Amino acid sequence: MLSKNKIKYINSLSVNKLRREQKAFTVEGTKLASELFASQFLSLFVCATQDWLDKHPGLIPEHIEVEVVLAHEMDKISQFNTAPGILAVAEIPDDESPLNLQLNELYLALDGISDPGNLGTILRTADWFGVQHIFTSNDSADAFNSKVVQASMGAIFRVKVHVVELDTILSKATQLQLPVMGAMMDGQNIYNMPSITGGVIVIGSESHGIRSELLDLLSSRITIPRFHSKETDRQSESLNAAIATSLILSEFRRKSI
Amino acid sequence: MLSKNKIKYINSLSVNKLRREQKAFTVEGTKLASELFASQFLSLFVCATQDWLDKHPGLIPEHIEVEVVLAHEMDKISQFNTAPGILAVAEIPDDESPLNLQLNELYLALDGISDPGNLGTILRTADWFGVQHIFTSNDSADAFNSKVVQASMGAIFRVKVHVVELDTILSKATQLQLPVMGAMMDGQNIYNMPSITGGVIVIGSESHGIRSELLDLLSSRITIPRFHSKETDRQSESLNAAIATSLILSEFRRKSI
Repeated sequence: MLSKNKIKYINSLSVNKLRREQKAFTVEGTKLASELFASQFLSLFVCATQDWLDKHPGLIPEHIEVEVVLAHEMDKISQFNTAPGILAVAEIPDDESPLNLQLNELYLALDGISDPGNLGTILRTADWFGVQHIFTSNDSADAFNSKVVQASMGAIFRVKVHVVELDTILSKATQLQLPVMGAMMDGQNIYNMPSITGGVIVIGSESHGIRSELLDLLSSRITIPRFHSKETDRQSESLNAAIATSLILSEFRRKSI
Repeated sequence: MLSKNKIKYINSLSVNKLRREQKAFTVEGTKLASELFASQFLSLFVCATQDWLDKHPGLIPEHIEVEVVLAHEMDKISQFNTAPGILAVAEIPDDESPLNLQLNELYLALDGISDPGNLGTILRTADWFGVQHIFTSNDSADAFNSKVVQASMGAIFRVKVHVVELDTILSKATQLQLPVMGAMMDGQNIYNMPSITGGVIVIGSESHGIRSELLDLLSSRITIPRFHSKETDRQSESLNAAIATSLILSEFRRKSI
């Protein structure tokens, strides 16, 4: 039986500001909870239904406090329409930025990526392509928002997301002569670019692009070419931000082999 | 003032079965409505608030019936949490499949892509890369679901989605000696594949992959390589279906230049 205070506390973690103040976030579902338990993150406690516990013996490490809850209580604390049988509360680790940028690493700088699903998908793809550090502007979605955590499919436990003033990071990269490449509509064709071993890829929001204050800090503008279709005159004007990010990452990685 | 019957009719279009029976779907928001009006699709009627009409003079073509609705009525018919000021009802065109496959065209075959956001993003990306025809299995999301339409950012009006038995299409491709390439975890590295001018790319669902009945119909298995990160042992096990599709399309297109 969950106390009213605990229900209130868990629900408060769905609000960005309160989540950050309390340095805790929720992780729902069997797959994501398993990823959490296998990670360096600290699990504060777990709520699970008896039914879920019966089906997943041994999945929760012994040292973690488990609260057995009823299905209707789960509905009250879950942020999903259909509550999975397990919800963990984990600690948000301290952000260790500012960071020493390495010359042979690829970084992502996300400027105003406000859609949580897009941010989560970007984290998942960054993880696939071995990108460890992602910088986000203050107005991007919060990385510990449950929709981001969900879409990241566990990448949130592996990559590091730093909320920063992007101009500071991009200036730092420039000082180190690390390439700072902005995804734009009028840049160099990514397929023709030379191989690089490190750099910062800047992705803007779908509605506004990269904000104007940052444009002077780019060392180059890069573009994903569009391919003309045979049958129609009109065609897509843009790509989804997560798709654009993944195409650029893939292109740099394939050249580095 | 919207009649009860009209409200009921519009809301019925949010249900896949009823939408298909009535051959009509809803298109919401200024950007998407503009794309609809510029397309070959037939607009049946438009509901708009006076406020929206004042701000967008001339945007709705003159021959289309416009019903001026109040904001609270818009809330009743909109499928979004925040109703935009315009909702159009458009006709679902007849599906002209079965289709004569062309040897120099790229096609997508989507097997059980059930997430509407993913399907919409795939349509948008296909449109960007000049892919005109997309085949989907019966258990994929419905292409005229409002979330698919939204995520497609207008691509739904340009690409053609055919709901088919995928084995029929893949067998047909095989007869024509058109390559049938399935995205799998254990296939050939896409970065090392030879250039092709046509073929069918088969994408399975994130949870189940390509269904086993279709595997025998593949002429090859293809894989997007993962890049190892320096800092952690564990890494993403998979990519989002829309991301995987876009990486494969980009790879084939870049080689065809």
